[in-house]
Amino acid sequence: MTNKNPPTTSSVDLIIEARWIATVNPQQPLLEQYALVIQAGIIIAILPIAEARQQYLANSTICLDEHVLIPGLINLHSHAAMNLMRGIADDLPLMEWLNDHIWPAEQALVSERYVHDATLLACAEMLSGGITCFNDMYFYPQATAMAASQAGMRANLGLLVLEFPSAYATDADDYLQKGFAAHDSWRNNVLISSSIAPHAPYTVSNQTFETVITYAEQLGLGIHIHLHETRDEIAQSVSQYGVRPMQRMLQLGLLGPNLVAAHGVHLLPNEIELLAEYGCHIAHCPNSNLKLASGIAPVAQLLAKGVNVGLGTDGAASNNRLDMFAEMRLSALLAKGVSENASAVPAQQALDMATINAAKALGLEHQIGSIEVGKLADLAAVRLDDVAITPYYDPIAHLIYSCGREHVTHTWVAGELRYSNGVYANLEPLELKDIINIWQPKLRQYKH
Amino acid sequence: MTNKNPPTTSSVDLIIEARWIATVNPQQPLLEQYALVIQAGIIIAILPIAEARQQYLANSTICLDEHVLIPGLINLHSHAAMNLMRGIADDLPLMEWLNDHIWPAEQALVSERYVHDATLLACAEMLSGGITCFNDMYFYPQATAMAASQAGMRANLGLLVLEFPSAYATDADDYLQKGFAAHDSWRNNVLISSSIAPHAPYTVSNQTFETVITYAEQLGLGIHIHLHETRDEIAQSVSQYGVRPMQRMLQLGLLGPNLVAAHGVHLLPNEIELLAEYGCHIAHCPNSNLKLASGIAPVAQLLAKGVNVGLGTDGAASNNRLDMFAEMRLSALLAKGVSENASAVPAQQALDMATINAAKALGLEHQIGSIEVGKLADLAAVRLDDVAITPYYDPIAHLIYSCGREHVTHTWVAGELRYSNGVYANLEPLELKDIINIWQPKLRQYKH
Repeated sequence: MTNKNPPTTSSVDLIIEARWIATVNPQQPLLEQYALVIQAGIIIAILPIAEARQQYLANSTICLDEHVLIPGLINLHSHAAMNLMRGIADDLPLMEWLNDHIWPAEQALVSERYVHDATLLACAEMLSGGITCFNDMYFYPQATAMAASQAGMRANLGLLVLEFPSAYATDADDYLQKGFAAHDSWRNNVLISSSIAPHAPYTVSNQTFETVITYAEQLGLGIHIHLHETRDEIAQSVSQYGVRPMQRMLQLGLLGPNLVAAHGVHLLPNEIELLAEYGCHIAHCPNSNLKLASGIAPVAQLLAKGVNVGLGTDGAASNNRLDMFAEMRLSALLAKGVSENASAVPAQQALDMATINAAKALGLEHQIGSIEVGKLADLAAVRLDDVAITPYYDPIAHLIYSCGREHVTHTWVAGELRYSNGVYANLEPLELKDIINIWQPKLRQYKH
Repeated sequence: MTNKNPPTTSSVDLIIEARWIATVNPQQPLLEQYALVIQAGIIIAILPIAEARQQYLANSTICLDEHVLIPGLINLHSHAAMNLMRGIADDLPLMEWLNDHIWPAEQALVSERYVHDATLLACAEMLSGGITCFNDMYFYPQATAMAASQAGMRANLGLLVLEFPSAYATDADDYLQKGFAAHDSWRNNVLISSSIAPHAPYTVSNQTFETVITYAEQLGLGIHIHLHETRDEIAQSVSQYGVRPMQRMLQLGLLGPNLVAAHGVHLLPNEIELLAEYGCHIAHCPNSNLKLASGIAPVAQLLAKGVNVGLGTDGAASNNRLDMFAEMRLSALLAKGVSENASAVPAQQALDMATINAAKALGLEHQIGSIEVGKLADLAAVRLDDVAITPYYDPIAHLIYSCGREHVTHTWVAGELRYSNGVYANLEPLELKDIINIWQPKLRQYKH
């Protein structure tokens, strides 16, 4: 695992010395008293602290003596720009929530500026909780890209496609063209990548799905969709198309290893088989699925069949935290409770879902998702010595079952420190407060 | 709601001025820019800040300009002394967890000193999360009482009764006698009260239950028991007694308004009716029930039938946090998800369960559980302006769905500040670290 033939003393950008490193590399999942050596944003060596001190001279060294260092968490399903709508309408049934609160507010207010501003808030929240990358879907993705870049976060942005008009676009073709223009705009931005994001089976026509598939193939892009989130969605599909949404997606040719399907709550056994057979990825959003009363996804069964499952927060209006610690914990607990098997989704698997599994879903597993030589230094440090959570016996179980995002002390993206102990490298607290002050009064009229 | 005929200027101990007060008083659940006036540990007035400043002179005034003040949270089912076993054995089935890890460790190590030390850790954890009172069940309750008193927390302590011998007691009669000695020992301690705690239907004989009922009546004490936690417990009862545990408890005469039954996971409709009919209380422990794969309690149905439901954390070995914010959030989310009704357990109801409902279960509803004139000033302050959880539209929904215990800034018990911003009034960080250093090496051999 160490660098081969290291020079006697090399000069490097950064060394991070940690009590524990949870690598998410199955060969050596947990290292004690090891150092990461980082140069130009890349992990170039992982070795015992004493050896690192002998072999490298760093511009900056950080000692994490009571921490576990983990791969940066990857939020596999988000609507970052919904952060301004956090708590605007709680405890409501889905259709009332959407029809009477979320959609009217979006119709009235969402603009490029709105998306940029709200996404900055979301980036602040996510960075403070150890999230380094998010897989988003919303209007005006170029504004999301600008905010993510300002914050210094990695993002895979969905080029949203819908049939119905919005301030952003008039019809499916217009959505696609605007999406491709956005895609072009971040072509040289190493932090931003793209998927095509047909919103859901109930908002996109067969013809548009066919166009989406063609473009995705031509451009080598992934596809990000909401799928089998609610019973209503399935009933509506059966009524309109005579088949459940998964079957329709299969017939259209959408199922494949480039498909990231958010939710997957209501799945028949043969549908789980289909997801496995076609190599599709599920973005499991347990907090949102409970809060909107959608139900509980069969995660233990999905994992047992070999489906790749990552974790997502969904938007702040239906969660109400963009908190991957909450998703890791709940995914582990819920799988146990519903399967009545206390060994279902053990701690390491929850961490895998929040890191390497999500990286695989985005096709980024060779760059991020685990702490390995050659990968990007997307990292978070989590302190374990808070008296409220002592003692601990297993750092990885502790991370999942005892720690919360409040224990994150540092977040790095590509070796750059983006958040540390309440301070953001690129975000000003006053700018964030101004965003609230500007937008909240306008949004308040849509409040429940 | 204000004090009648207040004197022009009265001298009082403490005034707390708050942006918001979530009173848990249904007549006025939310107050904005109000002050609490506290004298000798009692809330003597609740009035607008400007009026409070005119009418009272306080020895101490605290301004909570971006906070919500809430009643101190009440943990209705705990084993505080299990804090030293946090994370000792995760991801294991219940019987392996108990037989191979928890019970051997308890047999070998649990003593009066151990219980005292571990409970101090638990008190530190609970106070930092806004918990002011806990309803406990463990060996050596007099040691729990000493630790709670040192920390300055309120506790209702179960006088544990089991058939099997332990270091603490030899048989059911010995448990009872030791329990009553403990009960006598804290007779003059206003912070400590007692229940009799027959551990569970599967660990206590019919004869002992009859003795417990007699003593509870004579002494006017509540009863605290584990009931219908797992399917195994029910199957075992059917096999041994020919009836489910609830039916056996009914026949023995245990059901009544002084019974606090922890868990209540597996309940038939007629059993929910029985709980309602007899006025029993349920301590719902959603995190522990999921983690040990016991299942999901039918909370929406219990509440619909009028059963009084409070919330508990259970022990740190099966949670692994004594975090009532996590219990409030999960109880609200889980009820929605399993009933597929997004309006099930709205935010105010989750807060009620963690406060006034628990107070009712303990027979303490005239003293604690809500913020009202004449009640004890058991309180917690929660800051709402952390950038990671802004904005908010409804302080109570925000408290449940966005805040975590990391946002608790102050915890008072009977008007005494016991915790504030990382500092405990009566607990020394070094003493707490020493406790870990002494006990953890001994416990480590029982680790999974």
